[in-house]
Amino acid sequence: MILAGGSGTRLWPASRRARPKQLLPLGPGGETLLAAALRRGRAIAGPRVLVVTAETQAEATRQVAPGIELLTEPVGRNTAAALGLAAATLAERDRDAVLAVLPADQHVADEPGLTAVLETALAAVERDDVIGTIGIAPTRAETGFGYLEVDAATPGVVTPVRRFVEKPDRATAEAYVASGRYLWNAGMFCASAARLLRELDEHLPATAAAVREITAGRARASEVYPALASISIDHAVMERAARVVTVPAAVGWDDIGSWAALPALRGSDADGNTAAGPTVIVDGTGNIAIGDDGTLIAIVGISDVVVIKSGDAILVVPRAEAQDVRKIVEALSARGLARYL
Amino acid sequence: MILAGGSGTRLWPASRRARPKQLLPLGPGGETLLAAALRRGRAIAGPRVLVVTAETQAEATRQVAPGIELLTEPVGRNTAAALGLAAATLAERDRDAVLAVLPADQHVADEPGLTAVLETALAAVERDDVIGTIGIAPTRAETGFGYLEVDAATPGVVTPVRRFVEKPDRATAEAYVASGRYLWNAGMFCASAARLLRELDEHLPATAAAVREITAGRARASEVYPALASISIDHAVMERAARVVTVPAAVGWDDIGSWAALPALRGSDADGNTAAGPTVIVDGTGNIAIGDDGTLIAIVGISDVVVIKSGDAILVVPRAEAQDVRKIVEALSARGLARYL
Repeated sequence: MILAGGSGTRLWPASRRARPKQLLPLGPGGETLLAAALRRGRAIAGPRVLVVTAETQAEATRQVAPGIELLTEPVGRNTAAALGLAAATLAERDRDAVLAVLPADQHVADEPGLTAVLETALAAVERDDVIGTIGIAPTRAETGFGYLEVDAATPGVVTPVRRFVEKPDRATAEAYVASGRYLWNAGMFCASAARLLRELDEHLPATAAAVREITAGRARASEVYPALASISIDHAVMERAARVVTVPAAVGWDDIGSWAALPALRGSDADGNTAAGPTVIVDGTGNIAIGDDGTLIAIVGISDVVVIKSGDAILVVPRAEAQDVRKIVEALSARGLARYL
Repeated sequence: MILAGGSGTRLWPASRRARPKQLLPLGPGGETLLAAALRRGRAIAGPRVLVVTAETQAEATRQVAPGIELLTEPVGRNTAAALGLAAATLAERDRDAVLAVLPADQHVADEPGLTAVLETALAAVERDDVIGTIGIAPTRAETGFGYLEVDAATPGVVTPVRRFVEKPDRATAEAYVASGRYLWNAGMFCASAARLLRELDEHLPATAAAVREITAGRARASEVYPALASISIDHAVMERAARVVTVPAAVGWDDIGSWAALPALRGSDADGNTAAGPTVIVDGTGNIAIGDDGTLIAIVGISDVVVIKSGDAILVVPRAEAQDVRKIVEALSARGLARYL
């Protein structure tokens, strides 16, 4: 199951309401993030790949992934509802169904390596009915990720998770990284559909009931979805669930959560600049410059800046503050400029 | 005489080969720099205003200034040739002609004040056959201007110039400013046509001969111009001429030589940002953001940066290094991207 429903405002102005980040040609050779995620999914599931996305993105998603099975949500209610809908749908078809959940907005450099750790996690799920995660050795005190506490982290070895903490504050994240006993949660989950539904029954019963009603044809998604809680599976379930395991992995994983992640996806030149489209950078290093439509981006005398031209908007933000793009999105709404969103 | 022949590469990407900076609607209400210069010229000369420009810019210049008398040069050869051509043309009509030379790429806040100092300078020219300049109290150690050494600087009072130094190095400029005995040369000159031609005869004889031949109809500009030296009137004449005077002036003068000068021309908001077109600036001060065609410029978390979108190009440069735009122009030529010039 590919989670492809995000609005991706942190990749504005390339990502817009009608063009979420997983559909952008950001990867090498212009590959979309969704196409790369589908390849990762097919490596473990063959043709049995399901994409969950927003109804408003269904058309554009089908263009990137023709023939794929789509499950659409009438409104976005974060990942708990999306996973619940997928789990209920698959459980209806096969009560023993097991699923791997792969977010569409990630980059994995070592795809065979990822296939191996996912297969290890899926085997643990089938054997022990655990919830399997993928653990990444942290390289910075990132506050946007979840953290998995473990006793040891041997790549490829199924390891019990003592505790799951979603998005800690900066001081906590720093302590976690310093301790050496925490891994980043890569956002991929493996579990049986039945286990996921049981967890939702316990921790988010209204959502669990709603997705069962929808799947059984007793309720329309458009009617029940708007009332569902908008909460992530991490907060709703993972922080509270028992028997969570992780498979530590060194597979070149990156969350494409902001423009700052683009060099991981596309590489950079000898000056550390990452550029797409016609660009000229003089006396500058570590810049990220992405143009479109043949518009030239010229940068002189400045470093570590993100410059994005996409359609009718240009973004300029320091690379270290790429997360603050959401402030622009808020300001546009507040100032009557929502047409640029 | 309005000097309007520059290519204005420092205002790229708004200024291009076919659209020099004096024809850009950079001023308040979208006024062009040329239109403002014409108004300053008419204030002292009535309808007797002559514009010297490049042949390639004649059509665009006529659109901004319909009915104006144009003198065109087949190729640019800097200001010595342009002034020579104008002086020879006017001397042919009236051997006692006196002219005021006004660059088109300047901003003057106090136009009546400027009219008064120009009239003072012109009176000195008619009385004493001097070369009159306008002196501006320096506010920084600018290396792009000429400096006038004087014993005293009383606004509005004709003052002998001891020495004229064009574009000193940084240390020299700093010493000049610290001494209190130097004024910036505002780039405006008043002199008789005969005096200008005599100076050229002495310091740049080939140019003097050529402009006389062209004016007398004995040579075609297209044939003799390419061989002329490309040198400014400042280097060719002003540094060497005797009997130069200046009228110190406090008239809100600015040279619109780079994007950094734009706040003087257009003003700035409470955060010190200068913006035109749709812009959103969050957590940033002292930025200059100029868009076109409704393209939004969004800046977050960065200050004192120039962001210009014009046609098919975007420029990003620190405000303090706005002069370095010429490096972009050079790089574009070197990399086969001259179509963006």
